[in-house]
Amino acid sequence: MYTIEYLENFTRSVFEKMGCNREDAITATRLFIAAELRGLPSHGMIRIKDYFQLWEATRINVRPNITVVHETPSTAVVDGDGAIGMIAATKSMELAIEKARKAGTGWVSTRNSNHFGIAGYYSMMALEHDMIGICMTIANPLVAPTWSVSRMLGTNPIAVAVPAGKHPPFVADFSTTPIARGKLAVAGKKGEKVPLGYVQDADGLPSDDPDIIQRGGSMVTLGGTYEHGSHKGYCLSAIVDIFSAVFSGANFGPFCPPSVAYLPVMEEQVGLGTGHFFGAMRIDGFQPPEVFKSQMDRWIETFRAAKPAKGHERVLIPGDPEREKEKEIRKNGVAIIDPIQKDLKEIADFFAIEFEMGR
Amino acid sequence: MYTIEYLENFTRSVFEKMGCNREDAITATRLFIAAELRGLPSHGMIRIKDYFQLWEATRINVRPNITVVHETPSTAVVDGDGAIGMIAATKSMELAIEKARKAGTGWVSTRNSNHFGIAGYYSMMALEHDMIGICMTIANPLVAPTWSVSRMLGTNPIAVAVPAGKHPPFVADFSTTPIARGKLAVAGKKGEKVPLGYVQDADGLPSDDPDIIQRGGSMVTLGGTYEHGSHKGYCLSAIVDIFSAVFSGANFGPFCPPSVAYLPVMEEQVGLGTGHFFGAMRIDGFQPPEVFKSQMDRWIETFRAAKPAKGHERVLIPGDPEREKEKEIRKNGVAIIDPIQKDLKEIADFFAIEFEMGR
Repeated sequence: MYTIEYLENFTRSVFEKMGCNREDAITATRLFIAAELRGLPSHGMIRIKDYFQLWEATRINVRPNITVVHETPSTAVVDGDGAIGMIAATKSMELAIEKARKAGTGWVSTRNSNHFGIAGYYSMMALEHDMIGICMTIANPLVAPTWSVSRMLGTNPIAVAVPAGKHPPFVADFSTTPIARGKLAVAGKKGEKVPLGYVQDADGLPSDDPDIIQRGGSMVTLGGTYEHGSHKGYCLSAIVDIFSAVFSGANFGPFCPPSVAYLPVMEEQVGLGTGHFFGAMRIDGFQPPEVFKSQMDRWIETFRAAKPAKGHERVLIPGDPEREKEKEIRKNGVAIIDPIQKDLKEIADFFAIEFEMGR
Repeated sequence: MYTIEYLENFTRSVFEKMGCNREDAITATRLFIAAELRGLPSHGMIRIKDYFQLWEATRINVRPNITVVHETPSTAVVDGDGAIGMIAATKSMELAIEKARKAGTGWVSTRNSNHFGIAGYYSMMALEHDMIGICMTIANPLVAPTWSVSRMLGTNPIAVAVPAGKHPPFVADFSTTPIARGKLAVAGKKGEKVPLGYVQDADGLPSDDPDIIQRGGSMVTLGGTYEHGSHKGYCLSAIVDIFSAVFSGANFGPFCPPSVAYLPVMEEQVGLGTGHFFGAMRIDGFQPPEVFKSQMDRWIETFRAAKPAKGHERVLIPGDPEREKEKEIRKNGVAIIDPIQKDLKEIADFFAIEFEMGR
């Protein structure tokens, strides 16, 4: 087991060795650690290799000049200058919060960025300012719109964090597909089938093969089939795409640049890099803070008191599973599977820093 | 077949007879007509009886004093004073647009309102101002959170309208459940079964009985089952509930007042009336308008060019089906089924106005 501190020190060192200044290295590190803590290892230490390889391929800019290219009192477009996604995203969310402080709300669309980790992290940045936080991002195009077989959209997550009073905050963070990409990859590696309703083959027929994407297949949108509302998942995913990439002038939809160096950058570009969208709303833009928080407490208590279905013990509030996971991991440490340890060791050796395997 | 003009005149007369001033009667009428035009008759003429009965029961206020009770440059809370939902909602969306004009974006949460018709209409009000429009609302609690059997949420729709250039706008308008309530009701009346994944019984087990809701069952959230992402639909529905009812101080979740007079108002109230949420964002808050619109055109062309799945001819852009329906209905008129004609005739007789059956 690795302690949080150990992984923090290691990750920060990697990004400093890549050429990031200390502040940016700390910022990037926070996202890898947050993913591990919240029980989302698919966005944690496993991704350091992806960033290392993008850096080797000179496809990320470790000394970016991140600029605001357009703004109004409550909106802005940020150009990330090809930065590590976490750096561009953190600065963008800080700007959304800054704008909300003055105008009540702040909305920032960001282009020329890269994969930024977990969307929930940025939405939660708003909480300590007594604000609601919102975050969306586009991602590698693997998802087909309803009635299509073309891979046009990413798993395009949406995150919304709302402060409460005596209860922990409401934090929803979900992809707009039935499952996240990482779970398909795990099933594929284990040689397992997946339930129908996650992926389709090259003709658009349902498939239980998690690797079908490598043979012309695609993921489907939340809802799964038209009969069960996949067109609503398509709408959601399209909204994330437009807010993140059309608002900002990034590469929308099928043009979203890959977040891994082993896939080439597309020749045709319709904008600059990857796009994200951030929002912050002051709770006192709507209610006195104490009224807002006590009403959120009541909301949480009401939904926690819902009657569980047969075979279930409780009804969850969005954010519960991740918070419980964080408590457990802070206590027990982070387990890292051997192949990832090996990857991290190779990166450590490359940079002549320490990474101890088998902890 | 009824012409649009005929139904407009009739509907306006009904609301004027109820005591609305001419302007409010025209506003309410627009929503009933818009629902018919967009092929959503479940929110069209069929609902006039509901409003008539709410008026008879003195559960709506036809002379409301709609007020802004809290605001910042980009946010506000509106109190609808028990108004007809369409009146409170139209004024709220106008305020969101007004705020966006000055601050770049405008966000309004509304309480003390009633059922407001189709969410898409309000989102589309932003389009002529070169703004993106957003609208959400809570609704009759019929939907259970994941792993629960309690009816805690409505079908809670989300609508987002985005202007394009030479192409018609992108208009997404969808409930956060696999299907809308109206379709269940239709299947029930026909004595038909529904596919598994729409409703569950009182124990939380899947059911194909559209009338199960009347025997302790409930609708499920978009995704259908946990395995297929119903917790994501639950997150979405909860976000709509919080933005519409907690932000504004309306009755959230299971406390949402019924939109029909034959269901009693709950004794326990946690706020005032029904809640909605409205947003408007200037497109030039992000990009010069001509750049924004030409990029949206390119987005639309890209998605229209997606390869259709086997057995399908084309891939739709959100808004296509409703726009095509509107074209057809403007040409051919509105068909109203006999029982609804009878209801409208009774209301006409009550008010001593004209309604000709069998047109």
